[in-house]
Amino acid sequence: MDKTKIRIGICGYGNLGKGVQKAIAKSDDMELKVIFTRRNPAEVTEVALTKVVSVNEAMDWEDELDVVIMCGGSKEDLPKQVPMFARLFSTVDSFDTHAKIPGYLAAVDKKAKKGGNVAICSTGWDPGLFSLIREVLQAIFPCAKIYTFWGEGVSQGHSDAIRRIAGVKDAVQYTIPIKEAIERVRNGETPEFSKREMHLRRCFVVAEERADEEKIKNDIITMPDYFVDYITEVKFVSEEELKEFHSGMPHGGLVICTTETSPGVKQKVEFVLDLASNPEFTGSVLTAYARAAYRMKQQGQSGAVTMLDVPPIMISPQEREEVIRTLL
Amino acid sequence: MDKTKIRIGICGYGNLGKGVQKAIAKSDDMELKVIFTRRNPAEVTEVALTKVVSVNEAMDWEDELDVVIMCGGSKEDLPKQVPMFARLFSTVDSFDTHAKIPGYLAAVDKKAKKGGNVAICSTGWDPGLFSLIREVLQAIFPCAKIYTFWGEGVSQGHSDAIRRIAGVKDAVQYTIPIKEAIERVRNGETPEFSKREMHLRRCFVVAEERADEEKIKNDIITMPDYFVDYITEVKFVSEEELKEFHSGMPHGGLVICTTETSPGVKQKVEFVLDLASNPEFTGSVLTAYARAAYRMKQQGQSGAVTMLDVPPIMISPQEREEVIRTLL
Repeated sequence: MDKTKIRIGICGYGNLGKGVQKAIAKSDDMELKVIFTRRNPAEVTEVALTKVVSVNEAMDWEDELDVVIMCGGSKEDLPKQVPMFARLFSTVDSFDTHAKIPGYLAAVDKKAKKGGNVAICSTGWDPGLFSLIREVLQAIFPCAKIYTFWGEGVSQGHSDAIRRIAGVKDAVQYTIPIKEAIERVRNGETPEFSKREMHLRRCFVVAEERADEEKIKNDIITMPDYFVDYITEVKFVSEEELKEFHSGMPHGGLVICTTETSPGVKQKVEFVLDLASNPEFTGSVLTAYARAAYRMKQQGQSGAVTMLDVPPIMISPQEREEVIRTLL
Repeated sequence: MDKTKIRIGICGYGNLGKGVQKAIAKSDDMELKVIFTRRNPAEVTEVALTKVVSVNEAMDWEDELDVVIMCGGSKEDLPKQVPMFARLFSTVDSFDTHAKIPGYLAAVDKKAKKGGNVAICSTGWDPGLFSLIREVLQAIFPCAKIYTFWGEGVSQGHSDAIRRIAGVKDAVQYTIPIKEAIERVRNGETPEFSKREMHLRRCFVVAEERADEEKIKNDIITMPDYFVDYITEVKFVSEEELKEFHSGMPHGGLVICTTETSPGVKQKVEFVLDLASNPEFTGSVLTAYARAAYRMKQQGQSGAVTMLDVPPIMISPQEREEVIRTLL
């Protein structure tokens, strides 16, 4: 065992936790020490070499870990778990309920400061890398309009919303950016898009036997917040078809900005993600920022921060001199 | 006059200096106070409202400026001027001779520390935003191979090299990325490209009267370092044609990374710049980082740093809370 390695814990062993585990395995300077789970640890049998313990045992690990990567959901898990864990460890999380981020940051900050830990919040790709690109572009071009398109990719929240409809057995919803809208932005237009002009929603639904498909379709396309403001396509498929063709977790999107620095002088910037696995990509980002949380705490910092507060050099596994020589 | 504005000086009033001037005009929190020039200030007549003084008068301005944006060339100007200016002011520059950056940073660091100033070095897009993207991607994917393609755009260095050939009156050289190479990387291949496999060089040359065009062409395509390792196209044009069609300064390029987080799980990231004016874009980046230099000095920091050392939030004209609310 290399004592100089950063000692990592994972809290939550779903798709994201498994993605983080894979990213840690590729990081020579890190060691996965323990996985915290809400389940009965004995039932988490898919982990080969790592200890699995109950989240309730976190306090026993205070001196054994440098950073815990929080892999629970934004709705139920993270708002409860992260303040608690940040009291004991430096943390990284992917809290992504945009509207609630300021309050969340304040709650985590209090506990992290109390514990003398660094909590890097709302990491991943959106919020995350996309936020970083938006912020940098807006600073470079204070007058520019910056657009974000998501997809084509699976939205877990929208898929869940469909599954809650009576008569629905299972469902997968794809968010699809509208090509014509992207082209308009690329061409330098700065439209005020409505929601339906930027994205459409394509739903693959498995209905229960004898369910009323017309009613389900209507329940979907009229659902407030989730679907009513969009062009929504609904296709009924068999359970087998859903499993075979729609069980992946692809996602992606782009941040795009076209602006003029002088009349007629067009400058275009695009940042594009095309991800075969959203949780594995997000897991890789969280793992890199775990390195920053460790280093910032070592420098004597504490509290809750975002990716925008972290000097980019902090996430690199290489020495600063090497980064400057090879990547600058 | 708003006393809370960041007081900016520009050193060097060529294309880049003019680009910076435009960017400052769009930044509500900044005020351009003076332009330093190596020329006789009386001859710099194209500036309307800003004072123009000799670079030799820099010391007189020590208490009048917060940040000086250094807009000279990397070959002759910046290595001499930036250490001198960093002794007096916080600075931002675009020093781009990659191989010499470590030594340059050390020289500037010494003077900046002595003056208690912050010097942000090698800012722009490459080195600059491209470096930022490369570093972040390499940290997220430690095992990935990251590619940078430049162009289609005008390379000043290569254009100058052609102009030094006997019989050449004027020339413009375009660096052009090879589409097939980009497609291979997009498809997930990780080739070891030779130089000629990634970029080709297209030269528009105005020959002196009665010059031997075949000899000029041969001198270009066999020129070591600059052309011999590339597929180089040479086209002779009239002076008028060069002026009409090739006097812009477009540039751009892309950083691209395609990697697998698990076997068969492909993740692709692309950052693309398409710039109608290289100096105006670079000027916008420098101006945003001037804000960071000002703030970092206010926080008590000093010395030479790169964009990778600067927390991204530092370059934003908005308050942190507003950035988190609107851009995160």
